[in-house]
Order: sequence, then structure tokens, then C-alpha cells
Amino acid sequence: MERVAIGIDIGGTNTEIGVVNRQGDILLSFRWKTTDFERAEDFVSQLAQAVEKLIANNDWRIIGIGIGAPTANYYTGAIEYAPNMPWQGIIPLQRMTYEATGIPTKLTNDANAVAHGELIFGAGRDMKHFSVITLGTGLGSGIVVDGRVLYGQHGLAGEFGHTQVDPGGRQCSCGRRGCLETYVSIRGIEMTYKELGGIEDLNPRDIYLRAQQGEELARMTYLRTARILGNKLADLVHLFDPEAIFLYGGVANAHPLIIPEAQAEMERQLLKAFRGKVRILPSRLMDRKGAVLGAAALIWEDEK
Amino acid sequence: MERVAIGIDIGGTNTEIGVVNRQGDILLSFRWKTTDFERAEDFVSQLAQAVEKLIANNDWRIIGIGIGAPTANYYTGAIEYAPNMPWQGIIPLQRMTYEATGIPTKLTNDANAVAHGELIFGAGRDMKHFSVITLGTGLGSGIVVDGRVLYGQHGLAGEFGHTQVDPGGRQCSCGRRGCLETYVSIRGIEMTYKELGGIEDLNPRDIYLRAQQGEELARMTYLRTARILGNKLADLVHLFDPEAIFLYGGVANAHPLIIPEAQAEMERQLLKAFRGKVRILPSRLMDRKGAVLGAAALIWEDEK
Repeated sequence: MERVAIGIDIGGTNTEIGVVNRQGDILLSFRWKTTDFERAEDFVSQLAQAVEKLIANNDWRIIGIGIGAPTANYYTGAIEYAPNMPWQGIIPLQRMTYEATGIPTKLTNDANAVAHGELIFGAGRDMKHFSVITLGTGLGSGIVVDGRVLYGQHGLAGEFGHTQVDPGGRQCSCGRRGCLETYVSIRGIEMTYKELGGIEDLNPRDIYLRAQQGEELARMTYLRTARILGNKLADLVHLFDPEAIFLYGGVANAHPLIIPEAQAEMERQLLKAFRGKVRILPSRLMDRKGAVLGAAALIWEDEK
Repeated sequence: MERVAIGIDIGGTNTEIGVVNRQGDILLSFRWKTTDFERAEDFVSQLAQAVEKLIANNDWRIIGIGIGAPTANYYTGAIEYAPNMPWQGIIPLQRMTYEATGIPTKLTNDANAVAHGELIFGAGRDMKHFSVITLGTGLGSGIVVDGRVLYGQHGLAGEFGHTQVDPGGRQCSCGRRGCLETYVSIRGIEMTYKELGGIEDLNPRDIYLRAQQGEELARMTYLRTARILGNKLADLVHLFDPEAIFLYGGVANAHPLIIPEAQAEMERQLLKAFRGKVRILPSRLMDRKGAVLGAAALIWEDEK
């Protein structure tokens, strides 16, 4: 009987579920529409049925369920006021899942889940200090200090996306001005393309393809994005002194256009003592359903 | 025979030396002029003589020597290219001191030393996540995560003074523009006073006294300083999620004019989830030779 963990990545639109062994192989995976479940209770009861089937049909012992979700709090085990989720308010998903399945469950936010994944299945096997930046609709981060994901006093640490690039900058949905995620994210890149004179409504993938085909506007958009990111990463490095910074998520697929310029700008902005010491790299989990692996890593790290 | 540690705070001008017991009482202290020692070798040999006398004349067992110094690296045990010190280049002070005295020695930078002090003799007895900001000629920081001072991969973590307030801001001596310490430090406050129209050359203490006497220019200087600090502390809180932030050092003596406004501005800039959770406070070591206590704490924390 193989010991496995279930990793669940809950997004505003889709939920990915995977069965993950200690080596980080995804033995089986499937996808649900998050929006099909009006209430979290419905989601949990369908999850319990799915788990029962998995156990009945396979020679597995499920040692735990790990869940990554937006605005989930590792300490409280609850999703708290997620802005883009069908389930509103405070959802104690960890307790609900445990009660429905009888299987020990852990919960963290999506960016921290990727950091757990790097820690157990990726970079963390060789590194004790690193950060993961997730580039999607917003900008999230998971920060690893001394071989552990940083949660802070209230389980809220790692909000790199809401550090300030420019006090007079773009209005952020959080209420503050000039947050990094208003520039370096799907919406940020789209807005920069428009600001530079782009007329069409293009998403970052389209802009990336055009940049590769040589469109100057598209190239400038990624150049500006990479420079803002690189400059701000200097702040992150000054505070945490990591060995590496990993980029993850949809936008990070454009890393050939982002990383070299971000690295160069970061070096220009670093104190001398830090220069040449910190690499910006694509996440090692990028092509491997990293968020599912990360959620499963919440379980496997107890056996590290 | 009482067990004691020696704490040494080396500054560009003065060096403070204290004998500190487990409770954080300074049993004896004295001061040398750092500039009296042309070479670090001279300093160390006089230190060895002083230690011998301390042992001969007192019923003490010295269990270790802790040293705080500018740009000292905890991992390498060396002072590395301190800009305002008589001793240039790389000074392996930890090894030199151990070889001269036969007493185990530890070394860290001055801001981290204060964080160690808070951890052992101050706030850390009740807190696991907090930051110490030292306000002097520059702005230093010591960041405590999970009950340990954060050093990072290369021993360089915690350079909050060199995170950026404004990409088009004041030129910093580090080469970057708009670093926090160009605004919130002795020199930063002096410059703000001038920028606001002050004609005289006043130091922050004079400006503070005038503000207390009602001078509008002086009040505005502290108001602006506190707002810049408070805004930037929101970034620090978003990343580290601490329980409290402690201000230490000469400028922090003006905390009645700094803290209320910094706290208010920080709250305005924080994500909702963080509001009302993090207090800015004067360091608990403020009136107790905190840097000497902190240096001694390097030794005592091994027995925590």
C-alpha cells in the first residue's frame, strides 16, 4: 500500500486535485469548477465522496490533505474574505474537510503553497533561504527563512505584492497607491501596454508573443515590468538576504523576457555586499502543477 | 563565582564595554575612544589586558564576549569594510578576540545586536516576531522571526534602511535613490528641516526641542519624517507580519513626536487584515545601554 497525500489548489474559477507521493509524482489528478459549488459545504461533501472512491479503487493510504486557496490562513485553517471566490466570509475549510473525510488536513494560501512545494519537491532540497513570487491576477509571495515558510505572528506574512513601488503610483484594489502588484501582474501588464500606447485589449500572453515577434510596444511593456520588479526585488533581498528568487505562475511563463532585465535592474539597485549573490530563476515547479504539489507538500513536510 | 558575559558596542567614535549578568544587569561598564586605536590589533590587545584585570579583581567567570559593530557579519565573524571606522578592510575580530583572550567570542552588526538584546532582555521574552529599527546616523534594523534574529543566506539580512521610499528620491550614499535612511535618520531629518525652509544648522535633538516649544518648521520636520517611516513600515509589516516594531537609538528619543504619527500613517497604508494588530513602540532597552546589552545577549542566548 503506497502512502500518498492529496494536494488541492482552489482558485476562483478552477480547483485542481492531485494524488502525490513522497517523491512528488502526481499519480492521478482531476479538475473541478470551483464556481459549480455555491457553498463550501457542497464542495467538501463532494470532496469526501471523491476521497472515498480514491481509497476504494487504489492501493493507497492517504496520510493527509493539503489545500492551497486565496487568502487562506495557515494558523486558523480558514479562507478569510477571499475577494474572487464564490464562498464569502470566513470559511473554516480545514476543520470542515477533516470532519467530512476523517483525514488530517492543512490549509495555506496559494503563494505559500508554492513555497512549500519548492521546499519539499524543488529548490528547498538545496536551499534554506529563498522566495517564491507568484505572478497571476495579483502578485503573491511565499518566503522561506531558515528552511521554513514564513507566516509571522498572525499567519499573514509574505504580502510582497502590497509593498509600494511609488507613493504616487497606480491605485491598488487594496486602497493603497503604487503597490507592486498594480504593475507586475496580469492586470498590471495589460495596463502598462495601454499606457505605452497599445490600442487593443491584449492579455500578457498575447503581448509576450508579440514581443517575441518584435513588436516594440510589447517589448517595452515587458521591459518596464521587469525593471519595476527588479528594482523592488532589491528591497526584498536587502531584507531577507535569500539565495534565490523563483518566479511562478502564468505571467512567469514570459520569464525569458522578464528575468534577464529584472536581474540586471536588481543588481544595479543592490548594496555592494549583495551583488552577484542572488539569482532570479523560473520556479522548478513551473511545469508540474506546482500549486497542487505545494498543497501536498504541506503534508509531506511533516516527514522531512 | 558569578557567571557573566562581556558586551562590547563598537562605534565609529566610542566603544562601550559592559559586564552583564544573566538577568541583564550591567555590573560594570567603561568607555574607550575607538579612534584611539589605529589598528584593530591594538584594540584587541588592550581588550585582553582589560579582561585579565576584570577576572583578577572580581569573583566572575566570563562565559563569553559579544561584540556589536558596524557592518559586522555574524557568519564570518568579521567587520567588513565599515565606512566610518578607523580600521579598514576586512577585520576578523571574532577570531582575533578569541585568540587574544581565550574566551569564546561572537560578533554581529550593531542593529542586530539590539535585536538580540530585545530577544533576551526585552520584548523577546514575550514575542516571537518583531523588528527593531535603529535610528542614528543611518537607519539599521534587526528582524526577529520565530524567536531568532534573521541573518539570511550570507549574514546580510535586515537592511531596511536601504529599501526604497521613492524611486526619484534623495541620493543615498549607497548609490541608490530614495532609500529610507536618506529621510529617517540624523542626516535625513537635518535635510528635511532645511528643505522645509530652516536656515540654521540644527541636529535632530535641537529640532525636537524646538518642535516641543511649538516651532512650526520643526513640528513639520518630525511630521514628515514620521509619515515616511510609517508608510514604509507598512511594507515591513506586509512582509514579516510582526507583533511589534521597536524604535531604538538617538533619534528614537524623539518618539513622542514620531510614534503616534508613524502608527497612524502605517495603519492607513496597511491591508485590512493587518490593521490594529502591530504596535510601534520605543525599544525596551532604550535607557539601558541597549547595544552593550545586545552584544552580551549574543552570549546569553545560547543558554536560553
